[in-house]
Amino acid sequence: MSKLRLKISMSLDGFVAGLDQSVETPLGIGGMRLHEWIFPLAAWRTPHGLEGGEVNVSTPVIEESLANIGATIMGRNMFGGHPGAWNAENPWQGWWGTNPPFHHPVFVLTHHARSMLPLEGGNTFTFVTDGIESALAQARSWAHGKDVSLAGGANVARQYLAAGLVDEMEINLVPTLLGRGERLFDGDDDLHGLQLVRTIAAPNVTHLKFTRS
Amino acid sequence: MSKLRLKISMSLDGFVAGLDQSVETPLGIGGMRLHEWIFPLAAWRTPHGLEGGEVNVSTPVIEESLANIGATIMGRNMFGGHPGAWNAENPWQGWWGTNPPFHHPVFVLTHHARSMLPLEGGNTFTFVTDGIESALAQARSWAHGKDVSLAGGANVARQYLAAGLVDEMEINLVPTLLGRGERLFDGDDDLHGLQLVRTIAAPNVTHLKFTRS
Repeated sequence: MSKLRLKISMSLDGFVAGLDQSVETPLGIGGMRLHEWIFPLAAWRTPHGLEGGEVNVSTPVIEESLANIGATIMGRNMFGGHPGAWNAENPWQGWWGTNPPFHHPVFVLTHHARSMLPLEGGNTFTFVTDGIESALAQARSWAHGKDVSLAGGANVARQYLAAGLVDEMEINLVPTLLGRGERLFDGDDDLHGLQLVRTIAAPNVTHLKFTRS
Repeated sequence: MSKLRLKISMSLDGFVAGLDQSVETPLGIGGMRLHEWIFPLAAWRTPHGLEGGEVNVSTPVIEESLANIGATIMGRNMFGGHPGAWNAENPWQGWWGTNPPFHHPVFVLTHHARSMLPLEGGNTFTFVTDGIESALAQARSWAHGKDVSLAGGANVARQYLAAGLVDEMEINLVPTLLGRGERLFDGDDDLHGLQLVRTIAAPNVTHLKFTRS
């Protein structure tokens, strides 16, 4: 069974992005602090085409999160650029340059229709305007039996969680406060069938893995 | 140096108590879920006069939190009963019966003056109406060189954190969601000089210890 697997970094006060996300500050004010734990690690650097890096107890968690993924789903805000309709003449191509690090089909949930965007390295972006279930069905069909990664951001993650469609959730809890921004959990009082199954204490981050019971 | 040490249980979405705290539901709706990890443990049961109980990796964390404490500070809401002025004829005596589990002086921050309440077992409650610094000074003087425990709730904890007066903070992070209630962190974007120094993955809880750098 192909699983839908959410992985996301969250601050101690529950934010997955800061205020005022924009082209200049894609993760919002302070949002980059949620990801500083991963940048020194070889397990992150290698797939991003960078040499060297460290190995620590986060390494197998990152490797696990990248293994057996056949497609990725993300929200329009994570694909980024700007809100509203796409620029017809020079549409936003994503944050990742001509050869993004996914190397499989990516499905972007948006209210604004747009034709497919094929980039190098097997990175084909499909824009889905008919909702989360459609995006998941398309991603599963392109994943060929592998799992589907739910990359965020907060809004899309909340929609899939509320619909009970998330099979696995890895929260990378970072011991910092953002104060304001986008919350992963915003008023829900249950985890929609997910239960904590593994906690790993790593430098500058705690990995909390939840699965469906 | 006598430290001010905050220990508090918090949900994954940042709440330390649920909505609608009252005499019937002291921790608010769902708030009891934040404490279920501790009730089976001998390290909690013994000081509360109960027999038996389990030992696990949380045990040394609980023992550490109880060691070398000479006084406790808490907010009016944690002392409990009702909001507003004290009932003159039959004032609220706390949640804990005639012999509370503290066994040292307890300082209750309140807006409503009241004379000292001496209970059994060294549990003397003093009601402080002139603010957090006064309560800390009084607690330190009665602690005779030992540390002072900051027991909560959220409002008092936030005040001491914002004033930079907390020397140690143990957050017992519980993998559940409350959705609504009292947040430990509510808009602050830094930890006021505290840094994560220890993470312990335990059954149904993750212990995050912060100290002043």
